[in-house]
Amino acid sequence: MNTSKTPISRDLPPEPTLRRLPWYLAYVGLLRQHGVEYVSSTAIAKEINVDASQIAKDLSVLGIKGKTRIGYEVAALESALRSFLGFSCSHRAVLIGVGSLGSALISDTGLDRFGLNIVCGFDVNPEIVGTSIKNVPIYHIDEFRRCTAELGAEIAILAVPVDVAQQMADMAVASGIRALWNFTPFRIRTAPGTVIQNTSIYAHLAVMYNRLNIQAETRQ
Amino acid sequence: MNTSKTPISRDLPPEPTLRRLPWYLAYVGLLRQHGVEYVSSTAIAKEINVDASQIAKDLSVLGIKGKTRIGYEVAALESALRSFLGFSCSHRAVLIGVGSLGSALISDTGLDRFGLNIVCGFDVNPEIVGTSIKNVPIYHIDEFRRCTAELGAEIAILAVPVDVAQQMADMAVASGIRALWNFTPFRIRTAPGTVIQNTSIYAHLAVMYNRLNIQAETRQ
Repeated sequence: MNTSKTPISRDLPPEPTLRRLPWYLAYVGLLRQHGVEYVSSTAIAKEINVDASQIAKDLSVLGIKGKTRIGYEVAALESALRSFLGFSCSHRAVLIGVGSLGSALISDTGLDRFGLNIVCGFDVNPEIVGTSIKNVPIYHIDEFRRCTAELGAEIAILAVPVDVAQQMADMAVASGIRALWNFTPFRIRTAPGTVIQNTSIYAHLAVMYNRLNIQAETRQ
Repeated sequence: MNTSKTPISRDLPPEPTLRRLPWYLAYVGLLRQHGVEYVSSTAIAKEINVDASQIAKDLSVLGIKGKTRIGYEVAALESALRSFLGFSCSHRAVLIGVGSLGSALISDTGLDRFGLNIVCGFDVNPEIVGTSIKNVPIYHIDEFRRCTAELGAEIAILAVPVDVAQQMADMAVASGIRALWNFTPFRIRTAPGTVIQNTSIYAHLAVMYNRLNIQAETRQ
């Protein structure tokens, strides 16, 4: 492994690279479970359906290099990927909007394995405020600033109705939140300096339905 | 509105367009709730942070045109978007893997509002098989082919561990499933003709963590 202290983490890796790295992680994790010790970018390429040269380029952002004719050491690659992707640290997050999707996110223990620790949720519904889901307490949104500061959270997950999405984003940023994970289909605007990640799972449904319809028409 | 019967739905709208349309839908839905009757692409552009010309181009796939100086009729645009995106029909889906993420997906009633009807789940865990979540029954995976055929499902949601993702995808396609919504970080391969939509929410976390770290370093 190249362990020189060149400031690789200061370069902004392109988002497509960052989105492909978890695919490689999933695959090398599987290889490790099966006792495989080395893997080449060509072998990964075959399995993942991405060009071998693209894979080598993507992995170079980790500062890790494969050995000629042997490839990458599987355990080292897995660990470097997990660490580079931030999955081996714990990031404190709060959830805004504990409706159907919000409750589902709190219940998904998978997020924890990927470094996301939801420390509390916020809502306005009196039937939810004061309760807890899987030991995660739900507070009234009025307590947002105090709770977030006390708990040291820097990420807010937005799972609110569209009509309050922008307002809640503004409130969160004003309270010191530095990153918003937006699950609403609304396009949040913030001042530069706030990280926004949009995960509109419903938009993916639209792509799937459309492709299905076109297939059905082509078959006729 | 342009209602000519040109075969617009047979053209394959580009995926980026399909992913932007739900943003417009979210916004015009909000406008309708607020009693707004007409909206221009310039006004949408300002709110959504997408070029007005891009918006007009995107909306042209619906076969709907804005009127000069007035813009789009909000109610008609909302309805055309919902229908084009497939959110106003009900699509039958089955869930493979009723773990933490799978249970969360069944519990999310939002999917229903976006046209996805999860009719049953499948797992191998004897503690889960035979139970139900929000009235959605969970069957043993061995009953997949029979149940899917009986229930007329054409979409399978994959929320299984990485090491069985490919095998479950192959089994689903062999049983007549036509679209796979893949929530695992594994890159599923299928024969051409099967629709695959990858929604790796954990990959989005990686992008967010990375951007947060770089910000923190820049501040120092």
